[in-house]
Amino acid sequence: MTARQAKASEEALLRIFTIPEAPGSTLSVIEQNISQNLMGFLQESVVAVEKPLTEIERDFQEHQIPAAPKFVSDYADEMMKTLVAHSVHTSAPSFIGHMTSALPYFVLPLSKMMVGLNQNLVKIETSKAFTPLERQVLGMMHHLIYDESEAFYKSWMHSANVSLGAFCSGGTVANITALWTARNQLLKADGDFKGIAAQGLMKGLRHYGYNDLAIMVSERGHYSLSKTADLLGIGRENIIQIPTTNDNRVDVDKMRITAKALERDNIKVMAIVGVAGTTETGNIDPLDKLATLAEELNCHFHVDAAWGGASLLSKKYRHLLKGIERADSVTIDAHKQMYVPMGAGMVIFKDPTFANAIKHHAEYILRKGSKDLGSQTLEGSRPGMAMLVHACLQIIGRDGYEILINNSLEKARYFAELIKTTDNFELVSEPELCLLTYRYVPQAVQEAMQQARADGDIERLLQFNRLLDGLTKFVQKRQREQGTSFVSRTRINPENNHDLGVDLKSVVFRVVLANPLTTDEILQQVLVEQTQIASQDKKFLPQLLELAKT
Amino acid sequence: MTARQAKASEEALLRIFTIPEAPGSTLSVIEQNISQNLMGFLQESVVAVEKPLTEIERDFQEHQIPAAPKFVSDYADEMMKTLVAHSVHTSAPSFIGHMTSALPYFVLPLSKMMVGLNQNLVKIETSKAFTPLERQVLGMMHHLIYDESEAFYKSWMHSANVSLGAFCSGGTVANITALWTARNQLLKADGDFKGIAAQGLMKGLRHYGYNDLAIMVSERGHYSLSKTADLLGIGRENIIQIPTTNDNRVDVDKMRITAKALERDNIKVMAIVGVAGTTETGNIDPLDKLATLAEELNCHFHVDAAWGGASLLSKKYRHLLKGIERADSVTIDAHKQMYVPMGAGMVIFKDPTFANAIKHHAEYILRKGSKDLGSQTLEGSRPGMAMLVHACLQIIGRDGYEILINNSLEKARYFAELIKTTDNFELVSEPELCLLTYRYVPQAVQEAMQQARADGDIERLLQFNRLLDGLTKFVQKRQREQGTSFVSRTRINPENNHDLGVDLKSVVFRVVLANPLTTDEILQQVLVEQTQIASQDKKFLPQLLELAKT
Repeated sequence: MTARQAKASEEALLRIFTIPEAPGSTLSVIEQNISQNLMGFLQESVVAVEKPLTEIERDFQEHQIPAAPKFVSDYADEMMKTLVAHSVHTSAPSFIGHMTSALPYFVLPLSKMMVGLNQNLVKIETSKAFTPLERQVLGMMHHLIYDESEAFYKSWMHSANVSLGAFCSGGTVANITALWTARNQLLKADGDFKGIAAQGLMKGLRHYGYNDLAIMVSERGHYSLSKTADLLGIGRENIIQIPTTNDNRVDVDKMRITAKALERDNIKVMAIVGVAGTTETGNIDPLDKLATLAEELNCHFHVDAAWGGASLLSKKYRHLLKGIERADSVTIDAHKQMYVPMGAGMVIFKDPTFANAIKHHAEYILRKGSKDLGSQTLEGSRPGMAMLVHACLQIIGRDGYEILINNSLEKARYFAELIKTTDNFELVSEPELCLLTYRYVPQAVQEAMQQARADGDIERLLQFNRLLDGLTKFVQKRQREQGTSFVSRTRINPENNHDLGVDLKSVVFRVVLANPLTTDEILQQVLVEQTQIASQDKKFLPQLLELAKT
Repeated sequence: MTARQAKASEEALLRIFTIPEAPGSTLSVIEQNISQNLMGFLQESVVAVEKPLTEIERDFQEHQIPAAPKFVSDYADEMMKTLVAHSVHTSAPSFIGHMTSALPYFVLPLSKMMVGLNQNLVKIETSKAFTPLERQVLGMMHHLIYDESEAFYKSWMHSANVSLGAFCSGGTVANITALWTARNQLLKADGDFKGIAAQGLMKGLRHYGYNDLAIMVSERGHYSLSKTADLLGIGRENIIQIPTTNDNRVDVDKMRITAKALERDNIKVMAIVGVAGTTETGNIDPLDKLATLAEELNCHFHVDAAWGGASLLSKKYRHLLKGIERADSVTIDAHKQMYVPMGAGMVIFKDPTFANAIKHHAEYILRKGSKDLGSQTLEGSRPGMAMLVHACLQIIGRDGYEILINNSLEKARYFAELIKTTDNFELVSEPELCLLTYRYVPQAVQEAMQQARADGDIERLLQFNRLLDGLTKFVQKRQREQGTSFVSRTRINPENNHDLGVDLKSVVFRVVLANPLTTDEILQQVLVEQTQIASQDKKFLPQLLELAKT
């Protein structure tokens, strides 16, 4: 390359940093479509019929970074075909299988503003007003949970070296942060011992004379908790899973008995985790009772309200989470039922000084006495997602959330009724928040199973379940592939089996009704579609009907 | 509220989900300004003169979530005044204090697309084509580091249950993920022992018969490593900081001696971390020698190339990172010198099966045998940031990055020369990549200090340093407040003191030249401005000049 050519390439390159996309460019047109009609854009751009993953992968096979630069318009064209077309229409009102929803329009331009400002929240020097804003959002969420006095927030919300919580990329990091802090508070500096943060877990256990640590949680606890136990060096086996009662809530009496047994083995219960909205069935543990038990055991009480936490915004239904105000820490994901885009988790600490147990400093950053938020977070550099939560809280407001949450919960109750009154469907778990599970069970099979249950004929029930599992998987997979609607699936032990004393885990459909645009008609249509698909099954359905006859 | 009123509020509320922002609305106008002239928007909207933080906080005092919804336009107006105006213009070409830069324009509309699609990368069911895309980006980065064969990538890039790395929100999580995996690989299942992931650190140490674990790293290692040691239960004291040689690179001989001492105490070196681009001085450890030592010790070799890693994209300068291809894992932040917005960290694993040590499954998600990326990440739900890295790799290409990286490194060399030849400035550390440190030292003081150094008069050097520290802080703070340009500051022991055998830590200016729009003229102007500010100091400067005379 000659010097002149080099100069020319360089100038061409700098233009991507200085010359905006022309209004008529491919990417600008795409952007305009998104701005003017996101739902339409997604409906048109995302293909309805599923392409096998191995075929999608063909477009992403190249393993070398391409040498030559590519025109933005060519790239945009290509991505429309290979990426957008084969994305998931997570905001479709009929996509009711996961905790995604339609987003308010205003988050689109605001996200762009956030990206354009490109602040780094680790430190005030690279975030300035974003730091007080994030502290305010944490303060508002703290108030939503704990309802402390005005004086409390005046003292603590913007106070250097403390924080009312931490923003995280998601609920997993929030749970890790909470339990990391709890572990460090438990094994804190004491006498000669400089604390677990400095000297590690083994010396901590030795100093305090514990054989081991344990965390107790419902068997319905999120898998991020066992990830946490692994990460923190406690070990997944020390996440003690406590059975639930018939309503999918943790059995606090059994938990108390387990705690006693652990105590006898000199294993210190480091924390109790209450689940406020289990991922599989949406139930809420008896938080008040758990808080009392945590007091008895003198241990940390964490509530994983990653998605249930949003229901605190409903005056009508917040009673369902009663006891959460006694938690030492709470996880809430704003990207679930608070209608913020992916990437906005939070952990809130009751005591503003609690997070000091994980405080870090560094010379060039996070100086002592500063108001930098990065000294009490697991993550380092991170974006200003707090702005989008702030925007939703202000623009939707308590009154707006009241309507959104209540509608969502009431839609779940409507769907539960619909399932119960529709032939060949069986509601497996009632909605406590906006999540429920159910399955397709031909009427004749329902009756035969009821009889088997009355007879205590476990073997027969197992036979039915095996076939029903196959049928449920078939329906769920086919429905997803058809692309009109989507429900997810999981495996749980239906309530009506609990008395049998055996675990009859079954595959079930799982539905989350968080999308404000999901209508009753869509829910009716989901059952119609599932009924049609089930009737096409040539493998499990005939066997089921046959078995019911014998 | 009557039923009719309630219905009306509900309909109004649903409009934020269904009716796009009107083209003439406040928020649309703001967005247009951002799209058409980001630099102009930031220059006009972000105020130049700094407002004290306590005043900014006044706009973020309210601790209650407002009851009434707010118009989007009112909110947008308010945020322009309270948030945007007091943000940091991180992309200004004269903002050379941190690792932020101007962004390519195309990331703005693409970010919007990413937010609109709102995919969740934890699982294919909520990400589909985004998962193969992310795997491809990880594959390309793997190839950039390890240059494996085509067959290798064909076998592994899209293979279920393995991954060539993990996307993370940033370098901190990437470092944690790498060392978590290393810890779990070391204390893996063996005989009766089910592995640390299941049974915890204490049982792991007991089973393998180690007294403790240690991680060795240069004293210039990033603070995220001590955070990692805390989190993993190893303890910050077990991050063994090894002194550097005169060039700010870790002293491998000293590291070897330390390793022997640890071995004698039966403390297992779990990992050696090489730094490829220290945060404070930008130097690169002798990676080849570290790799050899790691082989001798039979331990994990991790390279923290969070910002230095981008230099691998330069054929001309990638030799500076020689030895990185022998690392077991590497951290690279795309939001640093790869020109991607905040929130795009990566850890890359040499061995595709390595991350199996942190694998997690759950019934409703992450089923065994799936290609879900979430089973080998620390985070759970997370956004499709990989798309923006993918876009930069394709649109900028190797050739484009070659120019950007080379210019950046050469600009640093130019600035170093400029500092050396400008009166009253002292270069403290030479740029190896695009980072350097320096300070303002009046010529007379430079000479007096040289004499004191020759005399070995430590006391006198300390006196000078104390005053220089004050002066440097004054200049840096005032410069930031004036808002025209920005350099950061840190504390290091300048090279020319190393032979004295004492640690004469000094406050220095720190400059990162990653922004392609930073010109030579801007750099010249930075020194002019600093000279002016220094001359205004009435406290330290007179004392310094006085001391130099005695």
